[in-house]
Parts: sequence; structure tokens; C-alpha cells
Amino acid sequence: MPKKILRIDMTDLKATYEDVPEKWARWAGRGLTSAIVCDEIDPACHPLGPNNKLVISSGWVTGSPGAPSSGRTSFGSKSPLTGGIKESNSGGLSGQKIARLGLAAIIIEGTPEKDKWHTLVITKDGVAFEDASDLVGKGMYAVDEALWKKYPKTAVIGIGPVGEMKLSNAGISVNDTENKPGRYAGRGGLGAVMGARGVKAIVIDDTGGPGVEIANMDLYKQGRRSLTEAIQEHALTKKDGALATYGTAVLVNILNEAGGFPTRNFSSGNFEGAGKISGEAMAEIVAKRGGEGTMGHACHPGCIIKCSNVYPDESGKALVSAIEYETIWALGANCGIDDIEYIAHATRECNDLGLDTIEAGNAIAIAMEGGLLEFGDSEGALKLFDDIRKRTPLGRILAQGVEATAKAFGVHRVPTVKGQSMPAYAPRAIKGIGVTYATTPMGADHTSGYTIAPEIAGVSGKVDPLSDEGKADLSLTFQAATAFLDSSGYCLFIAFPIMDIKKGWTGMVETIAGVTGMDIGDDDVVPIGKEILKMERLFNERAGFTSADDRLPEFMLNEKLPPHNNVWTISNQELDKVYEWVHEN
Amino acid sequence: MPKKILRIDMTDLKATYEDVPEKWARWAGRGLTSAIVCDEIDPACHPLGPNNKLVISSGWVTGSPGAPSSGRTSFGSKSPLTGGIKESNSGGLSGQKIARLGLAAIIIEGTPEKDKWHTLVITKDGVAFEDASDLVGKGMYAVDEALWKKYPKTAVIGIGPVGEMKLSNAGISVNDTENKPGRYAGRGGLGAVMGARGVKAIVIDDTGGPGVEIANMDLYKQGRRSLTEAIQEHALTKKDGALATYGTAVLVNILNEAGGFPTRNFSSGNFEGAGKISGEAMAEIVAKRGGEGTMGHACHPGCIIKCSNVYPDESGKALVSAIEYETIWALGANCGIDDIEYIAHATRECNDLGLDTIEAGNAIAIAMEGGLLEFGDSEGALKLFDDIRKRTPLGRILAQGVEATAKAFGVHRVPTVKGQSMPAYAPRAIKGIGVTYATTPMGADHTSGYTIAPEIAGVSGKVDPLSDEGKADLSLTFQAATAFLDSSGYCLFIAFPIMDIKKGWTGMVETIAGVTGMDIGDDDVVPIGKEILKMERLFNERAGFTSADDRLPEFMLNEKLPPHNNVWTISNQELDKVYEWVHEN
Repeated sequence: MPKKILRIDMTDLKATYEDVPEKWARWAGRGLTSAIVCDEIDPACHPLGPNNKLVISSGWVTGSPGAPSSGRTSFGSKSPLTGGIKESNSGGLSGQKIARLGLAAIIIEGTPEKDKWHTLVITKDGVAFEDASDLVGKGMYAVDEALWKKYPKTAVIGIGPVGEMKLSNAGISVNDTENKPGRYAGRGGLGAVMGARGVKAIVIDDTGGPGVEIANMDLYKQGRRSLTEAIQEHALTKKDGALATYGTAVLVNILNEAGGFPTRNFSSGNFEGAGKISGEAMAEIVAKRGGEGTMGHACHPGCIIKCSNVYPDESGKALVSAIEYETIWALGANCGIDDIEYIAHATRECNDLGLDTIEAGNAIAIAMEGGLLEFGDSEGALKLFDDIRKRTPLGRILAQGVEATAKAFGVHRVPTVKGQSMPAYAPRAIKGIGVTYATTPMGADHTSGYTIAPEIAGVSGKVDPLSDEGKADLSLTFQAATAFLDSSGYCLFIAFPIMDIKKGWTGMVETIAGVTGMDIGDDDVVPIGKEILKMERLFNERAGFTSADDRLPEFMLNEKLPPHNNVWTISNQELDKVYEWVHEN
Repeated sequence: MPKKILRIDMTDLKATYEDVPEKWARWAGRGLTSAIVCDEIDPACHPLGPNNKLVISSGWVTGSPGAPSSGRTSFGSKSPLTGGIKESNSGGLSGQKIARLGLAAIIIEGTPEKDKWHTLVITKDGVAFEDASDLVGKGMYAVDEALWKKYPKTAVIGIGPVGEMKLSNAGISVNDTENKPGRYAGRGGLGAVMGARGVKAIVIDDTGGPGVEIANMDLYKQGRRSLTEAIQEHALTKKDGALATYGTAVLVNILNEAGGFPTRNFSSGNFEGAGKISGEAMAEIVAKRGGEGTMGHACHPGCIIKCSNVYPDESGKALVSAIEYETIWALGANCGIDDIEYIAHATRECNDLGLDTIEAGNAIAIAMEGGLLEFGDSEGALKLFDDIRKRTPLGRILAQGVEATAKAFGVHRVPTVKGQSMPAYAPRAIKGIGVTYATTPMGADHTSGYTIAPEIAGVSGKVDPLSDEGKADLSLTFQAATAFLDSSGYCLFIAFPIMDIKKGWTGMVETIAGVTGMDIGDDDVVPIGKEILKMERLFNERAGFTSADDRLPEFMLNEKLPPHNNVWTISNQELDKVYEWVHEN
């Protein structure tokens, strides 16, 4: 049975199933959300207005039997944060269930009655529009719990109070296997788009669904075997490998050593307290406290990398999952805070309120620079989440993210591109990631072209992070491969093994060819990725983006970053080269 | 003695006098501020960062003996509100004194020591950098009073608390002949740029200054006579004419009749309470209360139009000056408030705090739409100014203007172009002004191309406001003529007589030719204006503006505006025609 597009109209509370039109037939995941956004959303529309839409899609292989670490769900829209196209993807339970219901994509559109909120319950039999009055105002812990009481073992996609307020740092939560709101399509404020549609939560129950059709099972199985082997062989992703042992927080010490760990609103690349908030430190606490705490946790069924973790409180009860490297950095080092217990509590607040941790931590750091608090004041910082919960004006400022906070406090050192704040890698010390920040259609985003792999981790060769040379090409290749991977449903972390181990790359491509029947080989990854990037760049151009938006913030060109004491030196001409091909032919 | 450029460096507290370079020699007022902004400010710089500058210039004829209604001062910079080039001009005392000191322009640049504030005292002998610690935190009433105690009869340019906070609705105040802060270079947040330079106030004392050299006194006098006669003959500008009798608020009833008086955040073009806040109503109160109250007030020496007013309290003591049409509209009708006493008090708050009244009223209206207050709640609205004074987070939101307030309250009906809110003319009911809002390099601004003259007031012919036809050309002609007038130092209100009475136009040109020695005639006004517009548009392009920024907000294309029940129908192609000439040849 061919997949369907499920279109949900919040004006009339009507759901319709449509055949997938030919123009979208090749796409899934990010490729499909971006294609739909480009075809159906006016780039000039207001992100919170009646003409924006939220598009949800699983990847090509998501939901296929035994495809390793492939449970991603893509969310696409015009972003309230950047004003451009956005794809943000998440782990958790939703991707596989959407795929197994035979849905290529879900499009949520239309304008709800004022102050009316709904939970959409999607099953094989259709969509039920349930009154969500009882969930409004609640954080995601309570929402997930309430919905599992009624719909056990389902996937729950939801927004916290921040999405209800339609603020531009509202993320979209996806529950994990323990039904905790630890997985987020965090970036770009897509939770506000969901809020503008009057949707508080989406329950996905795939019971009795048709499942995922496999076009060529032999090819699929062959690919799956190769890919699985590669994952299991690589030092970062194997069983008991670095990611399973320390989580993504393994990067804290590594980045700090490299002088690329942004500290106190990007004023240094070294944090004196890094050791106390490192993956090693976290693993030690988790081991000591025991109980429900664990490293090597899987965010969705079938993940064999298991980079996630459950951080326990002193009694061993689960406090929060997961504490990622970028979260530790944003809430910790970037605010001058070296207290992992604070970071755990603040992360839980973000997960509950529906905030992207990267943008939230950056916003707090900017408020510190603007004089609201001292850097390092973890007690004061924790209280700020109460402001957000109580919807105070201060909470409304902070929950919009960095640009809004900077403007409210008159700060001009603003580490954003296209309105979105930079993650945990200092571009003055690691030039390739700076090119990605500057040029990706998504706004400053490490996951859009993770050149950290060769620049820091030594994956796919070793490249000098401080050198400008070749970084435009390097970033583009990573951006293109990532756009492809974001369409596959695979977790970005398979990139490490597939770049280092050839059979992994081939296997990944074979699984996609096997599931979809597309005639693709190893060399098609980057060209297909570029097709996606081209769609996205053209949407942004129609929305008014120019090369002036492909720039790092001014202060990084003027202020030297210790310890390397470098400024950003990659020229505008070099940055403009990254996407010049979009207008060729 | 040729004029000089006075360059003031706030890093080293140094002032230097420079010869006017050839490339700037033709320009004055807006033409000169825009030329300097284009030549010296990186369009990519952060508006509050170390590389932005504030440029101040009087017009061509300002300070010349007896030039009628010619006391404008232009302020130019990269705008914190729009992110583009900005020129905002004001009446008051400063223009004539700057001119009489022989200064073509003042450029304020460099970065002050943290939390260090200065008053710049500019005399014929140079610049004194006075510690302004005693003025910091004070409103403009107190600042003006304190500085006249020390420097009587001087011009005082200053910023209120909003400029100190570097918020994007910070205006720049200029004192009037009674030393009250009623005159503002309000729009675009230039007060925040002054704040970022650490300048609280600028005192201009022209005692002993060289005065303005007149190149051809006969021609100048001839022009002055013709222009003065035209002003004195025209129904709007003559002695006891409409502007002197009712102030600009004469427009309240007229615009309301025309269905173009935006009400409750641009949801209607008719306000049921218009009569209570009209110019006629105000004039009646002023006459009844008497005392210091007056209509027909001049904002600077030598104004013969006298559109300003002094609104008295019940005891006859001056409460505020001036209450303009746009102010009445923004704080009144647009918030659903029909209480002129509230409007007077709120205007005083704006003048004291250093807020543009148009942006402030719009921000309150948006907050009302976002649920902070009910429309019409004047009591609640007045308290919001306390929030700004106390620098609360809510105050910080509101004092940034409309875009920030809309984002904080999740509102998508946002009446802005290029980040700046629309003034008191509904573009769905008056199409030409909509073209001006959409396309002027300044962001939504009526003074940039006041097509209201033919569309509503019947000046320079009569054009149907509801028709789309010819509005692109009409707006461009007005925008160009305005850019010229903004460079002359004449008040924009001479436009009425000079467009209707030919000798007025010729006289205006002759005065400029007479003062400057430039060989220009009647037909040079529009071409010279276009040169200025071209500079400004090119700056904005380098700052990243595209045709996507030349659009009215989406909701005006979708929602019908009562009573005419029109949507905005002028096509994007038509809008793009307005400035297509910039790239021809």
C-alpha cells in the first residue's frame, strides 16, 4: 500500500488522506518536510499567522525492521526564530509509529478557534480531535503522563507552556521509551508553530498499521548488516564505545582542550570548570548514584549507539534524560556555571517547559552579559525558569531566545546567525563549523554540517581546526551529506562509522535503496543532499535572505578568542562560494 | 569660512574639526547624514556595537536669517529598529545653532568606558566632555532643566532612560523654545545609538559662532519672500490656518471620515471616539483652560506655520507640548482610547522617557491584542510607562516597540514594515501611503512620502485614496521630493504651500541656491531627492534588504478593513517598480 499524506485542518477540524504527489514521491524526512514547506508555504507569511503549516515526516528507512538507530522524526515549517525554512528532527517514539501507519507526512494547517486547544489522536482509523483543555498550561512531564494513562505505549508529540505562548524558543517534545519528554525537535521555535495551530499534543498509535513496505528485502538486509557492523566497529559508536560510555558529553574535555569550548557568552574558548561538567564527571555520578540512572541509554527502540543517558537524583530516581554535550555547554560553561546538578535541574525545566536547551542557555548567558545576573550564578539562573513557567514578562523575553534577550538588555555581542544562537563550538577556534553556522539555511546549527568530525574528532581524516583552508568545501560536503542523512531517518551519529568505514556508507545507501526501490549508490548521497539544500536556500531567498545573512556576528570579527587569540578570518567571498552553485545552470 | 565636520570620538574623548571632503560638499541635512552613514558605517555592523555612529546635520538653509520654518535637525545612523539606514529629523533649537557654529555635521563615534556617561558641550571654542553621572537615569524634563541652569538658552539634545537602556524605540529629544522636550527625532531607535556611545546629552551653544554664509544674498532674499508669501497664502499653513488653529490633530476627523483612521491595532478604519480626541476637541480644551496652554505654537524660532501646541492641565499650567495627530492616533484610537487627558499624560511620559509616540502607542495596542490589557483601558496603559521608568522586563519589552512586543505576546497581526510600525494612516484605505510604508528605505513612515496630501487633503490635486492606480509613481515622487526637503532644513509642512502655489516651490529652491551657491532650479528637486534615496537603498541592500522587505504585513492582504472592507491589493510587481530605477544604468 503506498504511503499517504495526512492533512489536518485545524479550522474545520478535518483530516484527509491524500495520495503522495509525484513531485514529493522521492522524499522523506527532511527532504519531504522541506519540499512541502517550499511548495505549500508562502515564504512571506508570518510564522505565527494563519498561513504557516507544521509538517512532520519520518525518514526513508524509519520503521523498517531492524534498521539500526533510525528513529528520527523531521518537523518542518517556516521558523518563528529565523524567519526562514526550518527542519528540526528528534529521536523518541514518533518516527517509527508514523512510518508504520503508512504516513509519508502529516501536514497541520488552518487556524483554530481562539484559545481552543486540541490533542490529535492519530490511529490507523483516522484522526480524533480531542479537547485539550485539561492539558493546557501543563509541562511536558505531566502531558506525557496524562496521555499514556489514556493511550499507553503511544508516541506523544507535544508542546510545553512556551509553545502555548507562541514564543520563538519553543521546541517540540517527543516522548522516549520511558515516556519522558527528553527528546526534542528543539531548534527554530517550531513549538510556537504547533501552538499557533492550537495543537497541544499529538498521539500516534500505530497499532494495526500497515507497516513499512520494503521494495527489495535482500538489498535492504545486506545494507543493514554492513551498516550495523560498521556502527559496532567504530570507537565512537560501538557497544561500550565513547558515546555509550560518556554520552555526547564526552566532548566537554575534548573541546575545552582544543580551545573551542565557548565560555561566558563566547568570550573564551576555555572554561576552568570544564572538568566538573564533563561526560566523565557525569558518568561517575551516574554510576555512584545508580538506581534509575544510566549511561548508554537508547532514545528509541532499535538504537544500537545509545548515546543517551538518564541522570538520577541523589536517591537514584530518574531526574532528567538526556543531558547532552550541547546542553551542558549552553547551560553550564556559556553561563560560567560548573555545577552539573544545576545543569540537570535546568535541563529538566527546559524539557518540561518546552525549551530548546541550546537557545535557552545562550539566552541566560546574554542576560548575564546584560547585567541581569552575574556569570556563574546558578541559583539565580534556576529561578529564571520559574519566570517562564509563570509567564512573566522576563520569562517571555528569555523564552524567545538570544536575539530577543539581547535586544531587551541592550547587548551587542550576540552569537547568532539568521536569528538562531550558536551551539557549543567556537567558530574562531574551529573554522569549518563557523562556515556551517554562517551558511546553512537553518541558522547557526552544528547538526547541519558537523565538521567537528574531521576538525576535532579525527573522523574521516584530520583537518586543522584553526586553518581557514578548504573549509568552505568541507562544510558544503558535510551540509549536503547531512541533508541526505536527515532524510533517511538515521541518527546523525551513524555519520562517524560510515565516514570512516566504507561498508557502513555503502550499507546505509543500500538500506535506503532497499526500502524505497530508488536506484541510488554511494556517490548519490551528496548530490541528493544538495537538491534538498537548494530547495531550502531558494525558500530562504524568497523569504528575503541574502549573503548578508550568511555571516558570523560582527564581534567575532573584532574580538580575539582566548586561548588561541584568533578572530574570524574566513572572507565573505569564501562564505559566498559555499552556495554559489545554487544559481548555476 | 567654509563649514567643518566635527568628529567626536568617545573612546578617547577627543574632538577634531575636519574640512568637508568634496564628496560631501553638496549635501546637508538628510542628504549629508545619509552620505556619511553610507561612506563610514559598515552596513553589517551591529547597531549597538562599536562600529555604528551617530551623525547630526542641519539643513541647507537652517540658520540663515529669516528662512521661514527651517529649523530641522537631521540625525542619521544604522537603525537598531530596522537594521537599515535611518534619518530622523526634529524641530526644536538644535538645527539653527549647529548651523551657526559653522558645522556641516557632527559625527559621534567610538566606544565609551563601560557605564560612563557624558554630556558634550559644543561651543565655538570646541567640545567639552562633561561627566553626566548626575543626569543618568533622569527623564528629559529634568535633563533639559538641569542643563539650562548651567547653559541657559542653549539647544539641548538628549536621551531619556530608554536610550540609556539602548532599547530600539529610543528617540532623541531636542528642546523647544520653552526648554521642554517636546521635539523628537523619534523614529528608528537612534536614541539607543546615542546611548551606545555613552552620550546622555549634547549642549549646543552658538554664541559667537560664525553664522551661516550666504553665497547669493539677492537670490536668497527673493526666494525667501516668495516662499514666505506662499506659506502665508495657503489654507493649511497661513496665520490662523488649519494647522495653527487645530495643530496636526486637524486630521483626526478628516481621516476618520475617510475610513483611514486605524483603530484597535488596525482592525478598523473608523473610531467611534474620534470626535473626543480630535484637534477641534483639543483646541476647545486649550481655550477653556487657558493659562500656558496654546494652539499655534512654534517649535523653533522663525517658524511661521506654528502647528505645535501646549496642552495645559486643569490649572492652566503647561502639561505637555506638542500633541500631534500621529500621537493622538497611536496612544488613542489605535488602543481604543478616546480620552484626550490620558493621551496628554501618556505623551508627556513618552517625551520624558525618550520614546517615539507612534511606536509606543502601537506597542501598547499590540500588547492589548496579546491580552496584556483590554483595548480602551487607559488606566492600565498609563501604568505601563511606570514599568518603562522602573526598567522592569515588561517595560523593556514595550520600549523596544511593536515587533518585540508582538513576539513577546505571540501576536501575528503586526503592522510594521522593516521592523518599524505604521503611523496613523490605514494603507488599505489610502493606497499611496501604503506604497510609501512598503518601499521607503526608512521603514513604515508617513513623513517619507506623504501622499496623504493629494489622497486626503486635496493638496497638489486630488487623487482617489482607494484606487491602486498610479500610486507607485505618486509615492516615488513624494519620497524623492521629501528626501530633498529633509536636506533643506525646512519643515515638511512647507510642502503644502509649495505644491499648490508655484512661487513657493521656486522660492524654496531659490533660497537653497542662494545660501549654498548651487546651480539648481525647480526641476532639480526630484532628481536630487532620488540621489539621496539611491544612497539609502544601496546601504539597505548591503545590509541585506531585498524586495521581500518592501511589503506590507501579511494580515493586511488577508483581512478586510472596515468601513470600506478593502484588503491591500497593490501587487508586488507594482511595489518593486518604485525603486527599479536604482539599478538602471
